[in-house]
Order: sequence, then C-alpha cells, then structure tokens
Amino acid sequence: MHNFSLLHDDIMDGDTERRHRPTAWTVYGVGAAILAGDALLMLAQDLLLEGPAPQGLWASRCLSAAVQRLIAGQGADLAFERRDDVTLDECTQMAGDKTAALMACACSIGAIYVGAPATLAMGLAGFGAHVGLAFQLTDDLLGIWGAPEVTGKPVMSDLRARKKSLPVVAALTSGTEPGRELAALLATPRALTEDELARGARLVAAAGGRAWAEAEADAALALAGTCLAEAGMPEDVRAEFAHIAEFITARQW
Amino acid sequence: MHNFSLLHDDIMDGDTERRHRPTAWTVYGVGAAILAGDALLMLAQDLLLEGPAPQGLWASRCLSAAVQRLIAGQGADLAFERRDDVTLDECTQMAGDKTAALMACACSIGAIYVGAPATLAMGLAGFGAHVGLAFQLTDDLLGIWGAPEVTGKPVMSDLRARKKSLPVVAALTSGTEPGRELAALLATPRALTEDELARGARLVAAAGGRAWAEAEADAALALAGTCLAEAGMPEDVRAEFAHIAEFITARQW
Repeated sequence: MHNFSLLHDDIMDGDTERRHRPTAWTVYGVGAAILAGDALLMLAQDLLLEGPAPQGLWASRCLSAAVQRLIAGQGADLAFERRDDVTLDECTQMAGDKTAALMACACSIGAIYVGAPATLAMGLAGFGAHVGLAFQLTDDLLGIWGAPEVTGKPVMSDLRARKKSLPVVAALTSGTEPGRELAALLATPRALTEDELARGARLVAAAGGRAWAEAEADAALALAGTCLAEAGMPEDVRAEFAHIAEFITARQW
Repeated sequence: MHNFSLLHDDIMDGDTERRHRPTAWTVYGVGAAILAGDALLMLAQDLLLEGPAPQGLWASRCLSAAVQRLIAGQGADLAFERRDDVTLDECTQMAGDKTAALMACACSIGAIYVGAPATLAMGLAGFGAHVGLAFQLTDDLLGIWGAPEVTGKPVMSDLRARKKSLPVVAALTSGTEPGRELAALLATPRALTEDELARGARLVAAAGGRAWAEAEADAALALAGTCLAEAGMPEDVRAEFAHIAEFITARQW
C-alpha cells in the first residue's frame, strides 16, 4: 500500500527521484504510474479478502480506512499549498491522516489478519500512529536541514517549494518577529535565492519551529515506545519494533 | 467505480471535456483528480464490505476483479499507442478488459450483493460483458464518424490522435490495399490535415473496418439479449435492461 500511495504521490508532487532512484512516472509515463498505483491498491485488497474469514475482511477494512485517511491528508496537503493561513492544528491533523494512519495500518494489519488479541493489534496500531507522526516531523526537519546525499533531494527542498511543513507552520504561527519575517520571505513573488533559502532556514529555527518539531518528534517516539510496552509481546520482538522506530526517525543532517 | 476509472482515464488521455462538461483534472488539478479517483475506489470497496456477509465480500471481490481487468486493459491501450503491429485479437481482448469487464461487474454486482440466484447473476454479467463490447465498438465508430455535438469531442478525434481503435485495427490488419494506404497515412510524421483525416476515415471504411465493427456490435448486442433472456427475470425488468443496451449502443452520426 505504501507503494500505491508513493506512485500517485510522486506524480502529484512532481518528484523525479525518490531514495536516489528515478520515480516510476519519469520512467514509464504518468498513465502507467497511475495504473500501477491503482493496481497495487486493488491487488492488496483482493489478497486480504482471499484470506481466512472474518480476519481477512477486518484487515481489508483496516486498509481501506487507512487509505481513506491517507487520501484526506494528501488532499489537505494539496489544499494547504494555496493557503497562507494554515494553523498548526490543521497541519498536525494533516500529518496524522497522511502518514500516521498509514503507519498505524502497516504496523497492525498483520496482527489483525492472523486474528491476534485486540490488545496486541491496538498496541501495534498506536505504535505505528506515533512513529508515523515522529517520522513525518523528522522528514519535515530533513526537508530543511537534511544533507542531500542522505535525503536524495536538493538541499532545503521543502523551503524551495514553500511547503507548509510542520516546522514551517510552527514558525509561521509562533507570533514571533522571525515568524513574521519568514512569512514575508515566503510571500516573495519569485523563486528564492540560495541566500534567501539559508535565511529562511535560520528564521524557522529562530521562530522556534525547529525546536518545536524536534520536541514533538521525541514525544511521539516516547509514546510509540509506551504503546509497544503495553502491547504484550515477547521482549525480543518488542526490541525489533523499537529499533525500526529509531531507525526511521534518526535525524541525519 | 465508473467514476474512479474515468477520473484517472481522463488524466491519462489528456481529455479536457467529457459529455460536454470539463473533466475534473482541468478544474481541480491533476493531484486532486488522482486522489478523488483513489477515494471513490476505496469507498466503493468499503461500502460493499460493510454489507451483509458473505455477499458483501463476494461483491467486493467482483469489483476488485473487474478493476484489475480494467487496469490490464487500460495498460494495454497505453502500450498499443507505441506499437504499429497490434493484432485485432489483442485489440478485442483489450476492449474486453477495459470496457466489458467493468460493464459485466456493474450489471451483476447488485444481484451478487443481495444474494440473487447464480443464474441471474451470471446472466447479468454476460449481458454486461456483451453490451460493454458493443458499446466500445460503437464508441470507436463514433470516434471517427460521430457528430461533435453528440460525442462532445472534435470530429474524427480518434483518427486525429491515431488511436488504435477497433475499426482502425480491423482496417490495418485487413490485408487490403486501402488498409495499407491507411497504415502509410497514419505513419505520417506530423499532424494530419482535415483533408487527410477525411481520407483516413474513407480508407477505414474501404478496408472493411467500419462494416466489421458494425457487424461485431450487432452480434454482441444480440448475444447480450440472449444472456438476458436466459437470466430468468420478470419480463418488464428484462425490457428495461434491453432498452438500456439499445440506448448506449445507438449510433448517432
């Protein structure tokens, strides 16, 4: 399911590269990439419904609920591009829909499919939701301060595209002087220069956007750990999940 | 489900108008149109799975099987654009996947969902498949000879776009002199003039492509009627279905 959304996501964002590899639409064309995304989504649903009843059906509905939230989040993300009054609450809600719902589903759908106890499935879903939010916050931080050789994207790519990412919205809504300067900078009616981008990044930090996002990511990661601890799983399995969470939220500047 | 595929289909084909109305992507943007298609597909599946067991699950799998064939057909259609050796068999198979599978599902999914007898559900699926093929043949004929005020597309739009539609492929593979002339015309490495388009249409007819498509459409419509007669439904309901079939395959030049 991640692949389905990525295929469509890359087209919407016009991304030509992901994880250092050319995106599908640049290689096979937009039409084929849309179709491949549709096909993966339908195949995933069909595969789940082929499974044992009633768990296959539960897993299928878990997936479709997650995809519906993913779509709502992606739609909000697109709409935000044309708005300059996005609140931090709206932005966090969007990240919860776009990323956290998908991760919650990915982490719990296996347990649901095999009919694991509700405590375990719910614990894994909670873990995934919190890790998803921590991941989005980290990804947004890397979108400004990440090294291109790590992110596979140009330096300060999110600022360049004037994305309403979480640290940026936190800065813009901070009510601080650097926040107001950032708003003025992002309203410049032409492409920003490298110097202006560097100043933008400094303003996000000065307005508290960077520290806020880092603290939120840490808090989300801690909550993820709590969910995991309460899910009732063997210690070695728990350690593996915890390792994955740390890996995907590691900040490599 | 028709709406989901149309939303993505319009983007792939670059169609700016459908049924005299602007297409979604031209009004809301490509990103929003892709998302809306994804959302409709997931909502349809979810709605079916909410229904009574096990029929809701049967209906859901009927839909996903149809969408998978639809995607295979759409993919073949895209691939054909870059090939000049498409056989009539391949083209008919593509139409069966792209249009007939969807219509078969649309006609039978209601019966499946309410747990109707297999004879009725299978009869309706057969009816839909044959009507779907008749519709595609008719649509392809209208794509060359249809009046713009009826089709909502420019005159000879399919020839203009050099689409490998069924009558065109029938003409190209006819082994006739007009068929060879048509192939040469379609290989012209520039946009065709209005005179050349008119000549192309005459060549399709002279090579037998038009008569073949008309005869195939009539045969498919007759088979659809047979399926309906064998489905075991009240006469007034059967008459309504037959009326729909005639309506959507009427040739308005």
